[in-house]
Amino acid sequence: MSDWSRRGFLKTLGAAAVGPVILGRSAFAQDPRARVDAAALRQRLDMLSTFGRPAGGTFADGVSRVGYSDADVAGRRYVIDLMQAAGLSPRVDPAGNIFGRRAGADNSLPPILFGSHIDSVPNGGNFDGDVGSLAALGVLEALTTAGVRTRHPLEMVVWANEEGVAFGNVLAGSRVVAGDVSADMNQLWNGVSRADAIRKIGGDPARITEAVRPKGAHHCYLELHIEQGATLDREEIAIGVVEGIVAIHRYEVTVSGVANHAGSTAMADRHDALLAASRLTIAVNDVITGQSGRQVGTVGKLDVTPNAPNVIPGVVKLIVELRDLSTDKLNTLAEMIRRRAAEIEQQSRTSIDIKFANSTAPANAALEAQQAIERVAKRLGLTNRRLPSGAVHDAQTMAQLSPMGMIFVPSSGGISHSPRELTNWDQCAQGANVLLGTVLEMDRV
Amino acid sequence: MSDWSRRGFLKTLGAAAVGPVILGRSAFAQDPRARVDAAALRQRLDMLSTFGRPAGGTFADGVSRVGYSDADVAGRRYVIDLMQAAGLSPRVDPAGNIFGRRAGADNSLPPILFGSHIDSVPNGGNFDGDVGSLAALGVLEALTTAGVRTRHPLEMVVWANEEGVAFGNVLAGSRVVAGDVSADMNQLWNGVSRADAIRKIGGDPARITEAVRPKGAHHCYLELHIEQGATLDREEIAIGVVEGIVAIHRYEVTVSGVANHAGSTAMADRHDALLAASRLTIAVNDVITGQSGRQVGTVGKLDVTPNAPNVIPGVVKLIVELRDLSTDKLNTLAEMIRRRAAEIEQQSRTSIDIKFANSTAPANAALEAQQAIERVAKRLGLTNRRLPSGAVHDAQTMAQLSPMGMIFVPSSGGISHSPRELTNWDQCAQGANVLLGTVLEMDRV
Repeated sequence: MSDWSRRGFLKTLGAAAVGPVILGRSAFAQDPRARVDAAALRQRLDMLSTFGRPAGGTFADGVSRVGYSDADVAGRRYVIDLMQAAGLSPRVDPAGNIFGRRAGADNSLPPILFGSHIDSVPNGGNFDGDVGSLAALGVLEALTTAGVRTRHPLEMVVWANEEGVAFGNVLAGSRVVAGDVSADMNQLWNGVSRADAIRKIGGDPARITEAVRPKGAHHCYLELHIEQGATLDREEIAIGVVEGIVAIHRYEVTVSGVANHAGSTAMADRHDALLAASRLTIAVNDVITGQSGRQVGTVGKLDVTPNAPNVIPGVVKLIVELRDLSTDKLNTLAEMIRRRAAEIEQQSRTSIDIKFANSTAPANAALEAQQAIERVAKRLGLTNRRLPSGAVHDAQTMAQLSPMGMIFVPSSGGISHSPRELTNWDQCAQGANVLLGTVLEMDRV
Repeated sequence: MSDWSRRGFLKTLGAAAVGPVILGRSAFAQDPRARVDAAALRQRLDMLSTFGRPAGGTFADGVSRVGYSDADVAGRRYVIDLMQAAGLSPRVDPAGNIFGRRAGADNSLPPILFGSHIDSVPNGGNFDGDVGSLAALGVLEALTTAGVRTRHPLEMVVWANEEGVAFGNVLAGSRVVAGDVSADMNQLWNGVSRADAIRKIGGDPARITEAVRPKGAHHCYLELHIEQGATLDREEIAIGVVEGIVAIHRYEVTVSGVANHAGSTAMADRHDALLAASRLTIAVNDVITGQSGRQVGTVGKLDVTPNAPNVIPGVVKLIVELRDLSTDKLNTLAEMIRRRAAEIEQQSRTSIDIKFANSTAPANAALEAQQAIERVAKRLGLTNRRLPSGAVHDAQTMAQLSPMGMIFVPSSGGISHSPRELTNWDQCAQGANVLLGTVLEMDRV
């Protein structure tokens, strides 16, 4: 037990002794003895990091455990073995998701589902997904150790190919469970078909539809994850209570000027597509930061044609990505950006075409789940705040089937998808115990 | 003879009758009968355009006649045959340059050299280089037709691989003549060695040093070329008197920020390398246009890493290219850009590294040549103005061996290196006759 755990333990005892919120709840739900084994969590995160670790590297060198890779298969084997040892009879569904179930007092009730993923981006970190997956296992073990029986059955999950590096298919496993079986099984990635990739991790593409679960299949879905942003770290807050997962709107922009000789074309005669694209990139930033709120907007991809030092750029293609919980706000921001683009067209004598490319809908976290997380954090003496998730998570698709809640723990410096990704061990354990408490709180809703 | 030629002919007669500038010159130099055959020039430009023309295309579809390609070999064969028919006994030097000589009254004098190139960029136009090459032939023919004998021998040239598409070696042929024999003969381009490429066009890599000519080898070098900029076209001026070929200074810039998640990283926490690079691109434009003069500055190449719509750019590499006749001015402009970059670093919390990459020295046109071109244009009733050449030309290397002069004719809309490149037939003929007159003027210097 870490120093933090001991302190938290005592605080919780204190709260339980005086708080009316705690009194009156069922005996097992407020059981102060149930704690995730912080030492085991740390040791397992360390061990999991070896599957996909760069040759000769250490934990700090990060991991490349892309979905369906050999490293992914090895990491999954490690987690399945842990689940087996915990008596969970793990099973892999036809989409390759790993499930482990613990019976409840009333097994006619839908299960509380919780978990995350263990696949990574190339050259990624050892906390994104891993913390939530191994904490879910720790929660089930802790309840067994403490002799706690929940009303609902509990189910942990490790989702397949969340990062979507393979086949460009983010949330590949959870999407199937939420009902999307449209992915092309013949699509090739690195010369391997999606069908073979799914078979490689123990799935069964021929029976993929059997992985789909109906609306209402779960009492709720919960996920612990690192923030991947700097808000909690900067504000020194232990627990983020996720309000929802933001909508993403993407626009494909084509700036058309005239490619011409960079030596013989006077400045006054130019129609420089990159100069116009630069003004637009700044305008996107100005529009986004000019409004109050937590919206973000990014020009992350930009390609210049012909892209030669001695040719004035003729065409620039770029993608503007906007994210916020409110679709209305995103539409308003896009309209403001269009107006700025029209001014830039005039000023730069280029034409700017802005085409709506695609979007994801926002997924709101259930208010009960947010309040449950807040109660638990308070009971454990942990600072907390509400915030949106700017990143995509499996919780987004699971929100289609049941109420959803997400718990964030801090990312040092906001760095993620990098070997430098870091959430300290105490913060990991704090998040795991908030997950445990939230499972018990939601069990009583 | 075109309408223009008739008008020019009469105007010149008038000028010759009254102008003291014309009186007192030797009989052949002011011979008003010597005119380039405008119809033949047009017909030959049309015919030359078929070597490298896109399949099924017309003259307006431009040309791809990259140096050392089969189309280049065919185009060169066509020009060599024309030179043969004109009695010039064409010869190919070891670097692949084509020369044709016409005796003078005093063959102990160094020749007046003039010409251009016929290789093109891929998907280029039918005027860049071709006009100057075929006009040079037309000048020699016109002098023979008119029975004019010059004091100096005259020599026309078609330079090899001026565009430098092959082997990335601009001015490949003229550089050798100016003394640079450092090019690696084993370098491969499209699987062919430079040695084999030179042999393909009739050169002899083993004897490459024999192509070198000493300083003072020519009385002067003259070149007619399209402007490739819009100055003459916009101002409706027939003839550009080139003051010199600008120096080019290139800087490699690396903007380093922090790549991070475009969803979970709040705007305030970003270190966006593309946002900083956009500000720098605009700063380059502001610095260049904020000073009087004809300097140009371009960001033509820009590459974003990792260049994904959902990742804040971590690194942007770009090239800043500055051109002006004055090296001092270029250094001052670079210093101003560095100061702006330092401000942008602070403002955007990125680091900006600006490294001097390479430069070419400016090449000034000889004042006698500029004045000769002006006298001839005036005599022919052609509007004219002085201007720098922002583009690189073989004249730049030839200026190392002798006084140099360049004549520009307008490029419609300033468009070049494009099938839409256009100089109308009258303008081509005007340029050819100014070249003719300038050869005669320089013969008397």
